[in-house]
Amino acid sequence: MSDVKKVVLAYSGGLDTSVIVKWLQETYDCEVVTFTADIGQGEEVEPARAKAQALGVKEIYIEDLREEFVRDYVYPMFRANTIYEGEYLLGTSIARPLIAKRLIEIANQTGADAISHGATGKGNDQVRFELGAYALKPGVKVIAPWREWDLNSREKLMAYCQQHDIPVDFTSQKKKSPYSMDANLLHISYEGGNLEDPWTEAEEDMWRWSVSPEAAPDEPTYVKLTYERGDIVAIDGVPMKPHEVLSRLNKLGGDNGIGRLDIVENRYVGMKSRGCYETPGGTIMLRAHRAIESLTLDREEAHLKDELMPKYAEVIYNGYWWSPERRMLQAAIDETQKNVSGVVRMKLYKGNATVAGRKSDASLFDESIATFEDDAGAYDQKDAEGFIKLNALRLRIAAGKGRQQD
Amino acid sequence: MSDVKKVVLAYSGGLDTSVIVKWLQETYDCEVVTFTADIGQGEEVEPARAKAQALGVKEIYIEDLREEFVRDYVYPMFRANTIYEGEYLLGTSIARPLIAKRLIEIANQTGADAISHGATGKGNDQVRFELGAYALKPGVKVIAPWREWDLNSREKLMAYCQQHDIPVDFTSQKKKSPYSMDANLLHISYEGGNLEDPWTEAEEDMWRWSVSPEAAPDEPTYVKLTYERGDIVAIDGVPMKPHEVLSRLNKLGGDNGIGRLDIVENRYVGMKSRGCYETPGGTIMLRAHRAIESLTLDREEAHLKDELMPKYAEVIYNGYWWSPERRMLQAAIDETQKNVSGVVRMKLYKGNATVAGRKSDASLFDESIATFEDDAGAYDQKDAEGFIKLNALRLRIAAGKGRQQD
Amino acid sequence: MSDVKKVVLAYSGGLDTSVIVKWLQETYDCEVVTFTADIGQGEEVEPARAKAQALGVKEIYIEDLREEFVRDYVYPMFRANTIYEGEYLLGTSIARPLIAKRLIEIANQTGADAISHGATGKGNDQVRFELGAYALKPGVKVIAPWREWDLNSREKLMAYCQQHDIPVDFTSQKKKSPYSMDANLLHISYEGGNLEDPWTEAEEDMWRWSVSPEAAPDEPTYVKLTYERGDIVAIDGVPMKPHEVLSRLNKLGGDNGIGRLDIVENRYVGMKSRGCYETPGGTIMLRAHRAIESLTLDREEAHLKDELMPKYAEVIYNGYWWSPERRMLQAAIDETQKNVSGVVRMKLYKGNATVAGRKSDASLFDESIATFEDDAGAYDQKDAEGFIKLNALRLRIAAGKGRQQD
Amino acid sequence: MSDVKKVVLAYSGGLDTSVIVKWLQETYDCEVVTFTADIGQGEEVEPARAKAQALGVKEIYIEDLREEFVRDYVYPMFRANTIYEGEYLLGTSIARPLIAKRLIEIANQTGADAISHGATGKGNDQVRFELGAYALKPGVKVIAPWREWDLNSREKLMAYCQQHDIPVDFTSQKKKSPYSMDANLLHISYEGGNLEDPWTEAEEDMWRWSVSPEAAPDEPTYVKLTYERGDIVAIDGVPMKPHEVLSRLNKLGGDNGIGRLDIVENRYVGMKSRGCYETPGGTIMLRAHRAIESLTLDREEAHLKDELMPKYAEVIYNGYWWSPERRMLQAAIDETQKNVSGVVRMKLYKGNATVAGRKSDASLFDESIATFEDDAGAYDQKDAEGFIKLNALRLRIAAGKGRQQD
Repeated sequence: MSDVKKVVLAYSGGLDTSVIVKWLQETYDCEVVTFTADIGQGEEVEPARAKAQALGVKEIYIEDLREEFVRDYVYPMFRANTIYEGEYLLGTSIARPLIAKRLIEIANQTGADAISHGATGKGNDQVRFELGAYALKPGVKVIAPWREWDLNSREKLMAYCQQHDIPVDFTSQKKKSPYSMDANLLHISYEGGNLEDPWTEAEEDMWRWSVSPEAAPDEPTYVKLTYERGDIVAIDGVPMKPHEVLSRLNKLGGDNGIGRLDIVENRYVGMKSRGCYETPGGTIMLRAHRAIESLTLDREEAHLKDELMPKYAEVIYNGYWWSPERRMLQAAIDETQKNVSGVVRMKLYKGNATVAGRKSDASLFDESIATFEDDAGAYDQKDAEGFIKLNALRLRIAAGKGRQQD
Repeated sequence: MSDVKKVVLAYSGGLDTSVIVKWLQETYDCEVVTFTADIGQGEEVEPARAKAQALGVKEIYIEDLREEFVRDYVYPMFRANTIYEGEYLLGTSIARPLIAKRLIEIANQTGADAISHGATGKGNDQVRFELGAYALKPGVKVIAPWREWDLNSREKLMAYCQQHDIPVDFTSQKKKSPYSMDANLLHISYEGGNLEDPWTEAEEDMWRWSVSPEAAPDEPTYVKLTYERGDIVAIDGVPMKPHEVLSRLNKLGGDNGIGRLDIVENRYVGMKSRGCYETPGGTIMLRAHRAIESLTLDREEAHLKDELMPKYAEVIYNGYWWSPERRMLQAAIDETQKNVSGVVRMKLYKGNATVAGRKSDASLFDESIATFEDDAGAYDQKDAEGFIKLNALRLRIAAGKGRQQD
Repeated sequence: MSDVKKVVLAYSGGLDTSVIVKWLQETYDCEVVTFTADIGQGEEVEPARAKAQALGVKEIYIEDLREEFVRDYVYPMFRANTIYEGEYLLGTSIARPLIAKRLIEIANQTGADAISHGATGKGNDQVRFELGAYALKPGVKVIAPWREWDLNSREKLMAYCQQHDIPVDFTSQKKKSPYSMDANLLHISYEGGNLEDPWTEAEEDMWRWSVSPEAAPDEPTYVKLTYERGDIVAIDGVPMKPHEVLSRLNKLGGDNGIGRLDIVENRYVGMKSRGCYETPGGTIMLRAHRAIESLTLDREEAHLKDELMPKYAEVIYNGYWWSPERRMLQAAIDETQKNVSGVVRMKLYKGNATVAGRKSDASLFDESIATFEDDAGAYDQKDAEGFIKLNALRLRIAAGKGRQQD
Repeated sequence: MSDVKKVVLAYSGGLDTSVIVKWLQETYDCEVVTFTADIGQGEEVEPARAKAQALGVKEIYIEDLREEFVRDYVYPMFRANTIYEGEYLLGTSIARPLIAKRLIEIANQTGADAISHGATGKGNDQVRFELGAYALKPGVKVIAPWREWDLNSREKLMAYCQQHDIPVDFTSQKKKSPYSMDANLLHISYEGGNLEDPWTEAEEDMWRWSVSPEAAPDEPTYVKLTYERGDIVAIDGVPMKPHEVLSRLNKLGGDNGIGRLDIVENRYVGMKSRGCYETPGGTIMLRAHRAIESLTLDREEAHLKDELMPKYAEVIYNGYWWSPERRMLQAAIDETQKNVSGVVRMKLYKGNATVAGRKSDASLFDESIATFEDDAGAYDQKDAEGFIKLNALRLRIAAGKGRQQD
């Protein structure tokens, strides 16, 4: 363990990662560089500076990555209407590649030879951090304390704190919660506690970002989303940057009880886990993006996107953002978004995000053909006979040769 | 046209198909057999008998197909979590193969050499009827009056009625609606009228099966659904047949404002069309089925199902139920449902159908492994390092050879 | 039929399309523009000029499209290792989009309002020509004489020639063959005649581009192919343009009995047909491209390519080159080819094109890791245990819960 | 290590696994049960008995599994036309699940709590053995000596032999080869030695099962293969069991220089490796199976099979035969084979296995429709116009709205 000289740690400022700072210094006799990012988790990041200093850290990186996070990760992912296992909007998964990238960039800047993180050995996040790190810097050493040390209970951690003079107030950073949580601009997640029984309904006071549908206003809220090339660029006509869009939609969604999800999912490491998620803005975005695509995408590219989506979601969930297969899929997805521009009008009401209208200059909806009224010859109904006859030919031949179809 | 001796018509008893009876008799100088089915459209089918008799029809088939419809078509489709283009639950599509099958069976019984239907030349239904018919009886003649005649306006149809003594009351069968509608136990659909502008929100008084979320009760309704091998077999512990299940869920869903959908979809014949749908029970079933699968399906079979689903949905939407590819996909899907048994508890509230709990004797959720608490050695966190290292190997080699991943 | 003013015809100079010139002039009372292209079919195109003039054609287009054909159509297709139904290299399919594009461009240049072609109503080529034409010029009128006229026998055609003074020598353009043939730089195809019985072996004297394996030299020929970004740019170190590469490989392959294929395929119009193909150069290219990819592609992008390939092949076979879905797939494929550079050494011998070696500066083959000898720590074999354990976890949990896997 | 009481070892009788017997006895102080199977590797298995006895083994299992191997593993795999990465016929991969199954069954019979194998820590075989074992007996202990011990050179192994009185002749079992080899009825593989440079051509004297194309007879051999439901049941009219079929085809193929393959493949553990394979019978079977399917499969099920095949191949290659996803895919594949019956005539000549004819009572090839001659109205060419028009509609609308397709 003596060959690690300097390690960059993804540092939240909380108790666990503060212990990790000390544990790394002791165990590896190395310098620790801390990296703390604001990705919209809703907590101040600046306090992490003093805490790191108190732990003897000399190189401290504190950054606001919200714009980059939404622009370069969340937005590209939403172009694919990405959902994991039919339900999950990948709120945690999509933040990890950015953290991994910055850890490696900082390692390169500071001459560090290792990176470290506070993810446990049972979860997906260790995989996501480390696959990213290895993909971007193949020779990097990764230190995952939770897989190495024996501080695997709250009591042992607290004892370690007292023993090493880690200030007590580090532990009071956030309201004590029985849940394991993770938050960024896209979502907040909850695991553990009484959620470990999938039959038990989540308690109302667990949820932090949204009111319940019951508590939401009795009047609907309408909002207009302007799309350009697959991305939202304005809300109600006001141009906004990606992270401003998502912040605003989180507010609107949360106020209207939108975006709660309670699922059992399959982790990449092989087990099922129960998780609850609040994704207010993302839930609105998913629905709205499908609506603008319904006008502007060709049928076959839309269907092909739908066939590729589960694979794309799996790639991101499993931690392969920084991989050739993700780039390959992204190239296909982005190719389709050139004309995905227009406006979607959404109705938000007590947990429901429904489409109230969609329009686009690039619309492929052709009223003159679609109409139930006289179409003035735009479509010749007689063409349908040949269309059906030839599409049926293989079935007719098979039936004619005695094949049973039922 | 003289070579058609007898034709079986899918007859609703309404104005349009009554005109078709007469038009077939005149145009083809042939006998017409009418076939009217109750598939849960919510209207009496028995009145069709007198109307057909009045038109001179001698062979009249009136049948209750609700049980067969849900058991053999709706249920198998829901095993795949089937959605077309991310939104549509295929309520119209899934009823057509059954109608096609009965038309052909009746043609075989009555010695008819042709079948006929009232679908227009612009829609998907003509395709679905005819592909089914050709697949089941390759030499059958199909007569699609809307593609042949020139009665392409309400006025011409009415003139034809008067000219041929088709009783006036045939036209008053249902409340006059500005929409083109189709209904069965799974859903009711609306097209045309002011829906032809995708920017216009549907009017509240269009919807027939559900109250609006706003008008739904202020208290949630909870319901327990018991699954066996992928199908619901009981509600709140009361065993029910498939069509009873769906009827009950339609009532519960409709009362709670659940299942409204407003989309632009891509038709198989090549155009986009705007449609609104109410699928109260189906919306609950889709969510609940995913929930019971989340406990009982293996990860890889679940993901493979998700990858195949868009294709399966397309096959059904396009009218290929009676095809080798549908059977092939069904074989794969059904193979996965052997252990999809257990109970899902759903919360229904003002448009929301959310999962409140799920349990199963066949659950693959392993609390001893998933727990955030001490797992007593059920899972060795150190295994994760090797898992990550080998999964990263190809990425590391590539990066080591200078490939850029960002 | 009177509203067609000018039509651009894909004109081979042969009997059939000469009849079409006359038939169009007579039937539509319109001007005919002829378009004759050299796409490597191995026959002079210049003689078509005099023939067209003799038929009264004033605007005559004769072009050498060989370079464009291989560079912009064949090469992109081979980047995907494209094969239809496991066997067919799409030699005919890939030439049609280029012809369609030129027909439309010439129509735009000459102010023509229609295009015409000599493909029959049973084949795929009509579909490919017309889908391309409609995609590039939606309002174009397409005239397909074989679907319209009644000259459906050799006798009627000959009678028509005599009646309209179409010179006799037009019929002797190519050696009389019992087969329907199509040729371009990628392949030559044979259909009809005694091939219509799939049990009958093709006769040796049918084949035109290759000697039989039996007649090929007793000594193997070795050839080195240099790839850059997925495309062959040099043979045996000599830089060549794409069409020169293909010409050269056709010669080498044909001399060595390589590239004969005898299959039954599924046409887009719904029937099966028997066809024989000679694709000497393409057969070598397919094998060699896989070999250079085997060194330079990442595993997951390679597998994803393989999963997408059948769809891509179907898109091209069915005639959708000029479609959003083809462009979407092409974007994904091309994204993977950035590093597909290096050299492949092929051995050609009596029908066999086998890989004798491959090397690349961008190789991901890592001898230090792959070796059976001591790897000096490049790969830690102990990592495999964790890798296997976690990959097995879902299977172990299922087995532990009593699920049978056999 | 003291808690292992009895271990079942996959024992070849060769030097390496003999050392493993001794090493297990010493290291784990446990009883060793040996299991030696004839799966067609072409060596006597009975001599393994005396060797095991000499090593003090009391429970010795020696079995002829050839019939089961081909019937239950090779044949189902060939129904899918399975190829890994476009080239590899999965000869090694498909044998492992059977070995894993028998190891576990013997462990259950003998009350063993562990299994062991001689696969190294760099290869795929360790994964295949162990995934199978865990899937079939989740609590089993797996001992992989090559990942544990330090006998990682020939010298150390030999020293260990002398030290532990392992008879010298164990080492001379097979002709000394510079290659790592594996053989069963489906193939023989070669890795290592001078193959570690992908630019180097394999030496002629490496190959063991086939003559070179150059050395093969100057006259072709024709053979007729009779299929029933996707499987070969007779050769030249003589009914045979599956393993007899494969033996016979291996002989025919090997004599005619068929089935050599030289590739670089992507291992599941993350590296690329160079391998050479001889699969004489399998190469013939793959081609012939496609030929019989070309007559008897519907187009869409054939295409769907092609889309699923790469996934199915990956599942088998990676070692997931005993998994839900393999069974799911198998269900889909087997569903398609009901009508895959008939006869294929193959021509074997100097490395080429080509189809000379195919016929079937279940053929979907319809000569009356496919013919270039007059089809007496079986197919109406005018249907093609409507077919094309509606298939083009989405492209025309897009072009009409100004979308560029080129």
